[in-house]
Amino acid sequence: MEIKAVLFDIDNTLYDTKTLAVNARRNAVKAMIEAGLKADVDEAVKKLKKIVKEYGPNFDHHYDKLIESYRMQPNPRIVAAGIVAYHATKIAYLVPYPQTIPTLLKLKERNTKIGVVTDGLPVKQWEKIIRLGLQHFFDAVVISEELKTRKPDEKLFTHALEKLDAKPAETLMVGDRVDKDIQGAKKAGITTVQILHPEIEKKRPQNELQYPDYVLGDLSELLEIL
Amino acid sequence: MEIKAVLFDIDNTLYDTKTLAVNARRNAVKAMIEAGLKADVDEAVKKLKKIVKEYGPNFDHHYDKLIESYRMQPNPRIVAAGIVAYHATKIAYLVPYPQTIPTLLKLKERNTKIGVVTDGLPVKQWEKIIRLGLQHFFDAVVISEELKTRKPDEKLFTHALEKLDAKPAETLMVGDRVDKDIQGAKKAGITTVQILHPEIEKKRPQNELQYPDYVLGDLSELLEIL
Repeated sequence: MEIKAVLFDIDNTLYDTKTLAVNARRNAVKAMIEAGLKADVDEAVKKLKKIVKEYGPNFDHHYDKLIESYRMQPNPRIVAAGIVAYHATKIAYLVPYPQTIPTLLKLKERNTKIGVVTDGLPVKQWEKIIRLGLQHFFDAVVISEELKTRKPDEKLFTHALEKLDAKPAETLMVGDRVDKDIQGAKKAGITTVQILHPEIEKKRPQNELQYPDYVLGDLSELLEIL
Repeated sequence: MEIKAVLFDIDNTLYDTKTLAVNARRNAVKAMIEAGLKADVDEAVKKLKKIVKEYGPNFDHHYDKLIESYRMQPNPRIVAAGIVAYHATKIAYLVPYPQTIPTLLKLKERNTKIGVVTDGLPVKQWEKIIRLGLQHFFDAVVISEELKTRKPDEKLFTHALEKLDAKPAETLMVGDRVDKDIQGAKKAGITTVQILHPEIEKKRPQNELQYPDYVLGDLSELLEIL
């Protein structure tokens, strides 16, 4: 097949969100304990993870909820300690996978159009793209909230195709999640590639649409299937 | 007089907020222009300053308003570029004045209690204190929003005195603003010291309470009047 466009997921596809989140949460908890939270590190990390899951990643008061869960009074000093530590860790880990930029550059050399299809809030996702140093790479960026939907809604993928002026049959979608990236793109008729970095938990496909056409260990292998 | 406690304002007293704000705003505007804002740097900086003044420093959409003022559509990429540049600049400039830590350490050696009285949101002000590396220095931190008031309300100063178990007559308040720090502390019966760094615009006292007892060029001179 002749591939003229490649769409990418961001999180755990272009950079290692998993390691970022694990370390940032742990460092936040440690800083909160240092600032006065009476808690065990491992237990507090587990609680925080649960709070993030319960209230969603874009909720503004995860640390207040964590403090509350220890039956302590609201404490802005402890919250601020968590925020500063989380942020410093986030900045340190918000770097592309080593294969990301070389692979995107090779696609550029081939005149392949490249785009992003990602779930999230527009400003937050753009902030990631900018911190990753990728803001000048993409010919199209589609962020779910702008279309008031989420993956696996195929509308996101067809919208990206329109922006790139590409047909489904000449496009690849590259992502880590079978229930989001693979299912959505496949429904839009796009050939799908699952990237499975070793630190990512592998989820089994739950239906026909969740079986990827290709499974790769990292982005650089993408060039072999073009 | 025997001084047993010293209260400090944060912004433009312990660190150079003015230079931080000027550079962070300018770098934010430049990054926004690089990301697609059609604007002149100097004009956009002026507009942004006006927007911050109009909507207050804790409003979340300054950059959206700036884009709107150029009659452009909402643009999350441009907003994110501004946020990332502002934040990077902020981190770089959020350092104490060179005299701050030496002076606080000398006060510690003298067994003088030290506290903070500042306007703002608790988490945001604690974030500054932590980034300045000063979170372990203060015996009391009073942040206006916790008492649902603002400087020059003398309640803030008397609350700090209670926390430090200090009397007004044995306390100094050190700050840059005559209408906030000097007026409020003087009303609470505290001896007042105005710090006037050269980059700060000098405001003339508007009433009797706004005349400071001392005016110093930087924090290190504080030790001479104790």
